[in-house]
Formats: sequence, C-alpha cells, structure tokens
Amino acid sequence: MIPLEEVQAFVRSTIEALPPVPVALADAVGCVLSEPVIAREPSPSFANSSMDGYALRAEDAAEGGVQLKVIGSILAGDAPTLRVGPGEAVRIMTGAPIPAGADCVCMVEHTEADDDGRSVRIGRAIAVGEFIRREGDDVVPGQVLVEAGQPLVPAHVGVLAGQGLTSVRVHRRPRVGVLSTGDELVDGAGALVTGKIRNMNGPMLLALLATSGFEAVDLGVVGDDLDGVREGLARGIASCDAVISTGGVSVGDVDFVKTAIADLCGPRARSMQVAMRPGKPFTFATTPDRGIALFGLAGNPVSTLVGFEVFVRPALRLLGGHRSLDRPTVAMVLDEPLTRSIDGKVHMVHAKSRWGTDGRLHVTKVLREGSHLLNSVADADVLLVVPDGTGLASGDDALGILLRDDLATAVRGEI
Amino acid sequence: MIPLEEVQAFVRSTIEALPPVPVALADAVGCVLSEPVIAREPSPSFANSSMDGYALRAEDAAEGGVQLKVIGSILAGDAPTLRVGPGEAVRIMTGAPIPAGADCVCMVEHTEADDDGRSVRIGRAIAVGEFIRREGDDVVPGQVLVEAGQPLVPAHVGVLAGQGLTSVRVHRRPRVGVLSTGDELVDGAGALVTGKIRNMNGPMLLALLATSGFEAVDLGVVGDDLDGVREGLARGIASCDAVISTGGVSVGDVDFVKTAIADLCGPRARSMQVAMRPGKPFTFATTPDRGIALFGLAGNPVSTLVGFEVFVRPALRLLGGHRSLDRPTVAMVLDEPLTRSIDGKVHMVHAKSRWGTDGRLHVTKVLREGSHLLNSVADADVLLVVPDGTGLASGDDALGILLRDDLATAVRGEI
Repeated sequence: MIPLEEVQAFVRSTIEALPPVPVALADAVGCVLSEPVIAREPSPSFANSSMDGYALRAEDAAEGGVQLKVIGSILAGDAPTLRVGPGEAVRIMTGAPIPAGADCVCMVEHTEADDDGRSVRIGRAIAVGEFIRREGDDVVPGQVLVEAGQPLVPAHVGVLAGQGLTSVRVHRRPRVGVLSTGDELVDGAGALVTGKIRNMNGPMLLALLATSGFEAVDLGVVGDDLDGVREGLARGIASCDAVISTGGVSVGDVDFVKTAIADLCGPRARSMQVAMRPGKPFTFATTPDRGIALFGLAGNPVSTLVGFEVFVRPALRLLGGHRSLDRPTVAMVLDEPLTRSIDGKVHMVHAKSRWGTDGRLHVTKVLREGSHLLNSVADADVLLVVPDGTGLASGDDALGILLRDDLATAVRGEI
Repeated sequence: MIPLEEVQAFVRSTIEALPPVPVALADAVGCVLSEPVIAREPSPSFANSSMDGYALRAEDAAEGGVQLKVIGSILAGDAPTLRVGPGEAVRIMTGAPIPAGADCVCMVEHTEADDDGRSVRIGRAIAVGEFIRREGDDVVPGQVLVEAGQPLVPAHVGVLAGQGLTSVRVHRRPRVGVLSTGDELVDGAGALVTGKIRNMNGPMLLALLATSGFEAVDLGVVGDDLDGVREGLARGIASCDAVISTGGVSVGDVDFVKTAIADLCGPRARSMQVAMRPGKPFTFATTPDRGIALFGLAGNPVSTLVGFEVFVRPALRLLGGHRSLDRPTVAMVLDEPLTRSIDGKVHMVHAKSRWGTDGRLHVTKVLREGSHLLNSVADADVLLVVPDGTGLASGDDALGILLRDDLATAVRGEI
C-alpha cells in the first residue's frame, strides 16, 4: 500500500493549468486569472461627495451657524462648471463631483435651507476634506487589482466592471467526463432484476463536478468489457480535459478499467493500492499526447465520494489554474468517541459538525462507515482524517476536511 | 434609526417559500425539497459481496487451511442460480449477489486457487456474514431519505438515483432581477466623461446571485427619473420573484427609487434608516398582488455588498425554501486591534481570516472601511459585526460572518 500523501503528490505532479482564454466578465466568476489585472483608471475617477448636502469652503464654516448663499445644485452624473466662492455653497448629491472652490461637504441633516432655497444655514463646523471622496482613494492607475492565480469572486467582478473591463483572461474551466462501468449498472427509473443495481456514482459525480465549478460531461454507462471501457474512455479523452471512471480497478476477474487505462496511456498508468479506507484501489494516468488525466476510482459509492475529494477535486482545481487546491483541514473537537481498527490505512470518516460557542467546530455525530453506505453519509459536512489505529475520546481533537461549500447549515455560534 | 435585527426580521416576516415544482434530479442540486423523499427500494437491493473472493459456508472454514471445490463464478450483474453445498465455494466479485447456501466471503488475498481453478484453499477462518453486505443495510423501504426543507447535495443525488428517481419536487429556484439606477452610470467599456462612473453594482449583484444559487436577470440601468425607475422595477416585477435595485434610496433630491417602490406597493413600502454602517438607507416592500419582493439598496458598492448579505441573500434563501438562512456567524480571534467610533450603528467591517493551529479562525487583516472602497474589500472572506463604540484589542474575540462559500483559501491548520 502507498501512503495517501504520496499518491496525491504523484497525481498533482503530472498536471498543469489549462491554457488561458478570454472570458466575458459576467461568465468569469469562479475562474482563475491567468495574468494580473492592472488598474487603468482611478477610482473614484473624480473627487465627489459621499453625502447629500452642501459643498462649501471650510474656511466659511470654521464655526457652526453660518449662513451661505446657494449658487446652484449638482446631481450625480452632472459635470459642474460653477465655482464656489467665499460665502457661497452648492447643493450637492451623493456621488456628484465636488465643484471648483469647494473643499468640504456638510451633510443635509446638519443644514437648514431657507424657503426659496437661495441660502442655507450650516449647523456645525466643517473641516477641509470632510465628506469628500478623493480621486483614486480606492484604486490608482497601475496598481494590481487582482493577482494572477486568484479565483474571481463577485466583488472582483464589480471592481473590474468599474475599470470598464468586459472580459478577462482566465484558465479555461476544466471540462470533465464521467464514465460509469459495470455489467450490474442500470440507469434511470427502469425495473431492477436480481444482480442489477442502479447507477448512483454517475449522477453523483456529475453533481459534484457542477457544484465544484467544473463543466460536467456524462459519458454514460459501459459494461465490464475491455473494448467497451476503452472506447468509453477514448470518447472522454477526445472531448474532455479529464475523465473520471468508477469501478473496475480492483482485483476482480472483469476489472478492465485499469487495463484499459494502461492500454491508452502505456507506462504512465499506475494502478495503486492506497493506504486509505475507503478507496484503496485507484488507477491514474495522463494520456501521452495531450496529457488528459484519467482517474479510475473504486466503484463503491462512498469510495467514489472520498476519491473525488482527495484525488480528483484538487487535481481539477490545478487544471483550472487554482493555487489553493485542498479544502481546509481543521482541528475539530470530538463530541463523541471515535474508535478505529489497526489495518495500516488512514480512515476517512464522514461526520456532522457544528460551530461551538468556543469558536471551534465540534464533531457532533460520527456517521456509519462502509463503502456501500452512501445514504448514511449523505448529510456529512466534514470528512475526518483518522490515522491508523487511533482511538480518540470525547473532547479530543480530530483533523477534519470541511466538505460543504455552503457552511450555512451551521447555526449561529452555538452547538 | 432602526436596529439591524429588527429590519431583518421585518423583511423575513413578509416572505414565503416559492411553490413546489418537479425538477429533473440532475438539475436539482442546491434546490430545497418541498416534501420528504421516502425510500421505495432497499439498498443494497440484495445481499452481495463487499470483496473479490470466494463465497462459502462458514462452517466449512471454522479453521484456516481448508480446501474447497469451486463450483462456479459470479460476476457483478449476474443473477446466480447455483447453490453452495458443504465443501463447496463459488468465485465471486465485489457487488455480485451471494449465492444460496453461502453465508460468508473470503477475500481473494487470503485464498490460493489450484491451477485449473477447480478448487481453492481458504487461508484463514471465516465467520458468518463476513464481507457480506446485507440487503437494506443502507436503506430500508419507507425510511425518509431526505427531509423536506433540505437542500440537495451531490451525495443526495446519488442516493436518490439509487432509488430510480429521475425528478424531485423542490421549491422553485428564485429568479431575481437587478436594476441599477443613477444618471451617473455608464455600462461596459465606453469612455467616461466628468461626473459619470461605471456601473459596478449591476455586474457584482448578478455574480452574487449566480454564485448564491439563484437565477439572475439583468434589468439594466435607468436614470434618475421617477417614470424610468418605476418602469424598470415593473419590468422586474413582471418577470421575476424578487428585484434588487441600487441607488436612489437616500435623502437626495433625485432619490426616486423609494418613491417608485411606494407607488408600486402602497403602504407596504418602508423606507428605513438602518442602524448599520455601511448601508444605512434601505427601502423594502412586497407587491400587493403577487408578493414580489423589492429591495432598494444604497448605491455605494460596499453598501450594496453588505445589504445583499444581510437583507437580500437570507430573504432569497427563504423564497427558495431554505430553513437555514444566514451564513455562519462565528467568534474569531482578532490578530490586530479594531477601533470604532460611537455613532449608534453596528459597523460591518470586511476582513481576511485564516485557520489557526488552535482550531479557530483568526482575523489576520482588517480591511479599509468606506462605502466606496470596493477594491479594498474585494478579497475579504469575513464580515465582522462590530457593535457601536466597541474598541477591541489584538487577541480579543470578534463576531464574524463567513462570506466565502469556498473556504479553500484558508491554509491547512496554520496561520
């Protein structure tokens, strides 16, 4: 058996980020920039008012109570030409340009206009610069706005739209095929006969890919037949950046996936026994010509789920240009004991967690283990990484991988 | 000013989940079930082998070293008709049905077959039930698989596909319009003239909606003109479940959004001063006939970002049938001090965080405040909720909202 970390390192060593492509800004959220974005324009692009109120000269309002002549009004979007002189003020709206001569703004709540709007009483003393947003306060031209290697978040989209950008160069979003193998598999709602089971891995992997930000391609089901498996994988290789297959990688008489991957990739193919439970058998290769990654995961659904998290997802993130590949692995407090057998493997144990009032994540329920028990682990939000033979007591720390993108299932600061 | 919690409670009190619709299982991930899914079939649907090996009678292998006659072979997908008698064994693959007569499996690694495959030596003692997955071990018919109100995750998709389900009833995914208002706004890459700024809020909100699992509809930009704003909102009302507008809700002379919302919704419209910074002005209403929610957010981009998190996102989740509305709010360790002025408001302060070796989230950098400083806060992963006038020292705890769906930016167990 090969240690998990060694297999993960091997997989990652074979993979490079996909080439950069231009993508419309609106479609780029979640994609990773292939080059830094440099600011072209200052933001704000001109000094403007942060409040609805009056623009004036601070020297006129050294004390509160002064009465000023209102010489005009500036709305957001206006390009003012007037100039504020001594004893004068201009009505101004949030976001409107500060007129020449003015060096501060008094918010409307501290003013009192006369009935005809021709003069205004400034209720308090105002300092130079008050309620003025200076040009370039947020962004100056030439500064790096988003570094290469950063995944775009919605606020970045706002910032880049603020620069007039309508597209960005990002690493192409990986397109990933899913091939389910096994004579026993039935897709969809058809009747089951003895010996047959329904295809769970295919739909689950397609959903995992979609929710992880990748483009998912359904390559369907093929039976336990070498030609069929090879042809299914070849279809994936032709149209995808990576292919995930399930089943056919163990020591069974008709486990043809490892043979098919070896046929397609030659000596680059490695069929491994990973020191991990579940998910021990694992085949991996990249094609010799275009470097398409082929992942042969074990076919039990919980093995597939774990294999996706530890091998596939980080590798696909690498393909997509991400620099941060792993989900966070966090020391959590066990609220119940956890016993393990000694078998030379790291045990990946699904569990449910909650935030505690101590500001830590607590493992509140360790879920049943068994590579076929998908329903039992479906509600898991963490995957505990339990070293071989460890027995842990309630109150001990355990390392857990945070599985859910959306942690909103946790409650506000309490167990 | 109205306390933040009071405004949040008001908004939520007006909103109900959208009606249930059938959705293809493949498209339902992230949607919320409107009714529980009850198991129709057991899983596993028949007793099967969890290993490649030999099925036999445990009484024949009370000790290791026994030699058994091999009477056949069963692959996954087969429907075996043979029966295992005393002194007999059957070659069996993972997932294949256990044949009649057999009550355990010996894994192939502990066996030695003779050259012609007609007999096998069982290397160790095997107990009844060993390496057999019993029918219904994971799922029994009649049990609840996914509760009503649960958002579907990929593992659920696998479990439901395992029941032969191809569609589920979920609350419709909210369709949400985005209307940007302001004479100053320019969309896209066009040249800027004095007084004009680029529309950042529109693209940012569309990205926020998409990454939060909602359907986003771009309603474009309208100027500061009451008829235009009303017409823009009406377009959204006609085609969406909710509409978000930005700008025009403060005390400026051309802040027409609050008027337009009041025109469309009558006395149900509320224009509020929320005791929060940024994002103090906020208008909210639901239409009298169909209950379409209208959110009038302040137009500064950081105000828009915060308003989306505290008002819009939870309300849209409620529309989508979610029961858990808020992102987790967690007590975090401040790694730098945080000083606040006293102004009667809760301050929402963007910051960056990291997991510490102590199993807690640490606030490593408090970002610049200012409702126009979108670039300064774009990399934030937490939003600190700082009560009025609080001064916090380095090492103190602060409450923070976890902003990122994808927390993979955090490093493995270290600061």
